[in-house]
Amino acid sequence: MLRRAALLRESLADMRVGKRVMKTLFVDLEKRSYKIHVGNGILRSIGDHLIEHGFTAPPIVVTNSTVLRLHGRTLLRSIKGKADDLHIVRIGDGERFKNQATLWKIYSGLFKARADRSSWILAFGGGVVGDIAGFAAATFMRGIPYVNIPTTLLAQVDSAVGGKVGINVPQGKNLIGAFHQPAAVFSDPGTLRTLPSRELAAGIYEVIKCGAIHSESLIGYVEKHLGRILKCDPLALQHIVLESCRIKADVVARDERENDLRMILNYGHTVGHALEAATSYRRFKHGEAIAWGMLAALGYGRELGFLELEDIHRISALIHRVETLPPLSGISVEDVWVALVRDKKARSGNISMVLLRDLGDSMIRKDIDASLLKRYLQQFLSASGDLG
Amino acid sequence: MLRRAALLRESLADMRVGKRVMKTLFVDLEKRSYKIHVGNGILRSIGDHLIEHGFTAPPIVVTNSTVLRLHGRTLLRSIKGKADDLHIVRIGDGERFKNQATLWKIYSGLFKARADRSSWILAFGGGVVGDIAGFAAATFMRGIPYVNIPTTLLAQVDSAVGGKVGINVPQGKNLIGAFHQPAAVFSDPGTLRTLPSRELAAGIYEVIKCGAIHSESLIGYVEKHLGRILKCDPLALQHIVLESCRIKADVVARDERENDLRMILNYGHTVGHALEAATSYRRFKHGEAIAWGMLAALGYGRELGFLELEDIHRISALIHRVETLPPLSGISVEDVWVALVRDKKARSGNISMVLLRDLGDSMIRKDIDASLLKRYLQQFLSASGDLG
Repeated sequence: MLRRAALLRESLADMRVGKRVMKTLFVDLEKRSYKIHVGNGILRSIGDHLIEHGFTAPPIVVTNSTVLRLHGRTLLRSIKGKADDLHIVRIGDGERFKNQATLWKIYSGLFKARADRSSWILAFGGGVVGDIAGFAAATFMRGIPYVNIPTTLLAQVDSAVGGKVGINVPQGKNLIGAFHQPAAVFSDPGTLRTLPSRELAAGIYEVIKCGAIHSESLIGYVEKHLGRILKCDPLALQHIVLESCRIKADVVARDERENDLRMILNYGHTVGHALEAATSYRRFKHGEAIAWGMLAALGYGRELGFLELEDIHRISALIHRVETLPPLSGISVEDVWVALVRDKKARSGNISMVLLRDLGDSMIRKDIDASLLKRYLQQFLSASGDLG
Repeated sequence: MLRRAALLRESLADMRVGKRVMKTLFVDLEKRSYKIHVGNGILRSIGDHLIEHGFTAPPIVVTNSTVLRLHGRTLLRSIKGKADDLHIVRIGDGERFKNQATLWKIYSGLFKARADRSSWILAFGGGVVGDIAGFAAATFMRGIPYVNIPTTLLAQVDSAVGGKVGINVPQGKNLIGAFHQPAAVFSDPGTLRTLPSRELAAGIYEVIKCGAIHSESLIGYVEKHLGRILKCDPLALQHIVLESCRIKADVVARDERENDLRMILNYGHTVGHALEAATSYRRFKHGEAIAWGMLAALGYGRELGFLELEDIHRISALIHRVETLPPLSGISVEDVWVALVRDKKARSGNISMVLLRDLGDSMIRKDIDASLLKRYLQQFLSASGDLG
């Protein structure tokens, strides 16, 4: 199962797109390598970019009504003329649509479009669209290519890199899926201006996560430019998207199938997942739960004597500056603990957790002392996540 | 998409299993390499073999009631004691069960068994079981291992090699699927004694196909030992299973994802598929349709001046010696032609066909003259497939 570790070859090319600058990151995964292009306004010239990538036949576009309403015209205007008879499969907007029924709706759309092994899918939307369209691509006629155009910050920094595709089932999230790398990713920070503020914040927490585990300078950048980021300044967004992708791509290139190293990307997930489950996935957006999970990991790391107090306060202050997180009130440590142990048992191991050794440097700890962690969580919840 | 061609490293090890001899073939696909073990009676010691392969945890067994009734006790006796709490997912027996509903039945069984990323599937049955259990393994938690114990001759010589897994949909066969190589294959010719004669014959046609495209000596062996094969002589069966797997493995190792070379394994399929579709998949077993398809390809090759007349008669005589094929009567050339063109159109190319250059040497022709082929098929059907 373990694939040969591949080095990330960095190939940052500046390319003028009209008056705009497009930056390109090369994700080196041997024969599954691909490029991530990030540039404000690239959606307007996407038709040309696709042709440059060899995608001359019309795609089957998978998207949702919200994205289609907000950005559909820009996409279609750029593609049309070049590919008049493209097909659009419209799926429901939201995590609850990332399921079996939607997957089969996409397959049906592919059959209706008379797709064959030479067809390709254009995933146009947030993480749900990318994950499910990518999984349809992974399994249609044993695998066809897909190009990802993520339109949320979270998707641009997270699901666009790594090739994890799949669907949710009643038993849990992403439990049916595959690894299927996209043929190319095009991220246009311009599409983020239409995001609700909670969605934008969810993406920023993910950027902070990338910085915390791997890059102090990214943390520094977000600290300095948070105001611009929250106002959707295109150059600031381009920078954080590109840097987050670079960090993820570096980790994924070294461990594509999550055998070990890739687990550091799960920073904040041990407690974050448990918080989501303990509140029946209703109170928090995933990014928000992970933000609380990072705060808990910071506090727990301090108990164990890791990390300077100054750094702990730096990250926690930054997280709280982004947006007010939904509160932890009323969540019992017992509910969190049951969810946490169940989640970990499903992976048949001890409790493991990603902790920071230093700001920008992380480690996977597989020897977490259950009673110590539980006691800490009790304290964390009573203090409403205040690290003091 | 193209993976590096890998050489087939041949590693035939004779291993005494009690008084039985087990032969082993190594399929070299880099990190997805695996071994095919063929030996009469190895089912009785399968528990030990699995442990040798590192499969110490109890498997989730996917099988059907027929196989369970005939061979379940042997399997379970050998595994039990070593793995008491194994789970069995029983699926329907027959091609019509290779569908979405059965796939989700397997997923449910995996969840009920509390399977996780460290779990593994044991596929125990014919081609349907191997294909669908393999696809469940490919997609459960983004991929878990599976071990294949094929119990039909066709599965032992065909679906056990190549990693093509998937399900049928109303739009066609195997249209949803993946490439997922097994962790190991164990073929016990002893299990073939319980096969209905048509099932055995379907497997023998597949062996003849392998010989025709790649090995004159295999054709010679089947000619000489057909009587023993039809009587399920274990050593004769072991030989043809091993040689067919060796040929398939050689081709697959050089072209895992069917970019070109692997297409030679589709010898007999251009016309065979069309015959199946033209008779609504009711009259012929897949192997029987392919047998007719090989005869048609032989006759058409003669029209084009390929192959010695003597060799054509050698193969056609051998096919007819296996068992009486269901007749071609009442099938109109128009129905066959519509199905053939539709099948080919779905692959967006011209009509291509595998033809023999010589006995044991095949080629892919992508320049088939449609009107010539149609005229030939008219003649082939009127003569009821008699090559004269």
